[in-house]
Amino acid sequence: MSAASLVDRVLAGEVRAASRLMRRIDDEDPAATPDLQALFPRTGRAYVLGITGSPGAGKSTLTDRVVARFRAQGQSVGVLAVDPTSPFSGGAILGDRIRMQAHASDPGVFIRSLATRGSLGGLSRATGDCIRVMDAMGKDIIVVETVGVGQDEIDIAQMAHSTLLVTVPGMGDDIQAIKAGILEVADVFIVNKSDLDGADRTVRELRQMLELRHATRRPPLEHDRQHRLKTRAAGKAPEPPPPSDEWEPPILKVIAARDQGLDPVMEAIARHREFLERTGQRAERERARARMQFLALLRNRLLQSALDRLEAEKGRLDEVALAIARREADPYALAETLAHQLST
Amino acid sequence: MSAASLVDRVLAGEVRAASRLMRRIDDEDPAATPDLQALFPRTGRAYVLGITGSPGAGKSTLTDRVVARFRAQGQSVGVLAVDPTSPFSGGAILGDRIRMQAHASDPGVFIRSLATRGSLGGLSRATGDCIRVMDAMGKDIIVVETVGVGQDEIDIAQMAHSTLLVTVPGMGDDIQAIKAGILEVADVFIVNKSDLDGADRTVRELRQMLELRHATRRPPLEHDRQHRLKTRAAGKAPEPPPPSDEWEPPILKVIAARDQGLDPVMEAIARHREFLERTGQRAERERARARMQFLALLRNRLLQSALDRLEAEKGRLDEVALAIARREADPYALAETLAHQLST
Repeated sequence: MSAASLVDRVLAGEVRAASRLMRRIDDEDPAATPDLQALFPRTGRAYVLGITGSPGAGKSTLTDRVVARFRAQGQSVGVLAVDPTSPFSGGAILGDRIRMQAHASDPGVFIRSLATRGSLGGLSRATGDCIRVMDAMGKDIIVVETVGVGQDEIDIAQMAHSTLLVTVPGMGDDIQAIKAGILEVADVFIVNKSDLDGADRTVRELRQMLELRHATRRPPLEHDRQHRLKTRAAGKAPEPPPPSDEWEPPILKVIAARDQGLDPVMEAIARHREFLERTGQRAERERARARMQFLALLRNRLLQSALDRLEAEKGRLDEVALAIARREADPYALAETLAHQLST
Repeated sequence: MSAASLVDRVLAGEVRAASRLMRRIDDEDPAATPDLQALFPRTGRAYVLGITGSPGAGKSTLTDRVVARFRAQGQSVGVLAVDPTSPFSGGAILGDRIRMQAHASDPGVFIRSLATRGSLGGLSRATGDCIRVMDAMGKDIIVVETVGVGQDEIDIAQMAHSTLLVTVPGMGDDIQAIKAGILEVADVFIVNKSDLDGADRTVRELRQMLELRHATRRPPLEHDRQHRLKTRAAGKAPEPPPPSDEWEPPILKVIAARDQGLDPVMEAIARHREFLERTGQRAERERARARMQFLALLRNRLLQSALDRLEAEKGRLDEVALAIARREADPYALAETLAHQLST
């Protein structure tokens, strides 16, 4: 199959062609690059929804429900699982746990997972490329499911237009697991399994964290709130808040397994999408994403040429490692010297 | 404080000096390098124990119990928490959940956490450096606690002499969360909270996975087992297995919260340590670790000079990002061109 025909078949939405290209991306096969390059001008149309959270938070069930609703709206959907704990990607180990079987026979849903994390920054690079493949296929909505730990996952969350952070009640540690970075990129907070004890406490804790982030990061709004409080204290009717360029992330209680609370989730996604369009932030996010993609490509290219030069030094590395292990050599001085030799 | 005196104070085991140096490492402050370089010849003595597993598996409680036992043996201990879900490192978000308070007043236990994941590969680099600081302080045992997802964590597990993988019963997904990479570096498997339903099933599943890894990775042993089966079928007494260069990872049931099952864990660690010494694999691991450290230093140095060159191009990057977001420019071709310009 020539590269041109693979590209044409992806553009026609053909599942087998897209799968093949995504497998090459996952393998970090350089042969994928010309195809990605040819597809690039035909991307940028899909809406990307990130769903992130700790293992066991029920991300996959929530994804399932959200996908069903987008399908009911007549939208075509791609699902990309980059979560090693997801039944989609993790299934490779124990098999047969495909909870999304409901969608298996629906040609409007295309589900793929990324198996490997690859080299430095490789996971987020591969995720960006796979999003573009699904985009080029013509998917309206692309759902990217990630587990909320690690720099890779924060980078991935930043590729989404809207990011849902899924947590569950009663896991104090779980709230702690929400790294500051992920907290900052989340647009909608979901307390799943909200029939469990402690759901309200989790909502309160999330609200406190959001207020903290508000207070430290958004002084003008806080000032505005003070003003309204003073107005109210003076006996006047509180003024309605001015139309704002700030998004206030909602916190929603959901029981995904029983399909409860999903309508507010869909409304929140639609509202956030509308917010991004109205404030021009969607275009801004696209620019940031383009910048990130370009930097990743450039960094990868530069790193690759450095590693190629290293590869030629293999025998020398073995000797060096032995001397270092014996504490006979200084790794810092040696690295400095070799790096200098390699980059000139 | 001059670098020389900081180094001397670390070598004398001073907690404040070591903390300061580790904070610099965590901040990726280049000022840490000369100190690390001066400390390096005085490292390589400590035994490094990795404890890894999913969030909620009870790694911190287990760490607590294991540390108490090493202390009872008169060993000095350093604990490095690189797990974002750990109460040690995660505590920064909600505070005051320091379960290790029992050891807070024991000068023989030094506990520190790594807060940030830094740039590409930064977490494993920082972990390696912090291990060396604790080593130079004279700690006998260094416990490194990590969450079992991500390439960084696999790299970190490979820095340990012995790695414990902690899981819990009844989390089917949890087993799936154990990535093949982590599975391969684990030396002792622990089923924690083994009073919960499904503990035996989890043990069985782990055993099956280990047999699978055995069958696919270690044909000589499998051949040996066939030989013994045949011998037995022929009515002869089974021969005892020959002394082996292969380590068979034990699977141990533990209830860390109730301090149950910890003695077999300590025995397994001691046995594995003895195994590494006897077979020469400890020296082999040291060499591999030295190689990894050196490559990381070199890669970082090469990447840094590439990024420095990029930094000078900032204004150009903004223009480029806008053109890419509008699909007016080809990011692949541009990256290729710029990388070529930058590396010559």
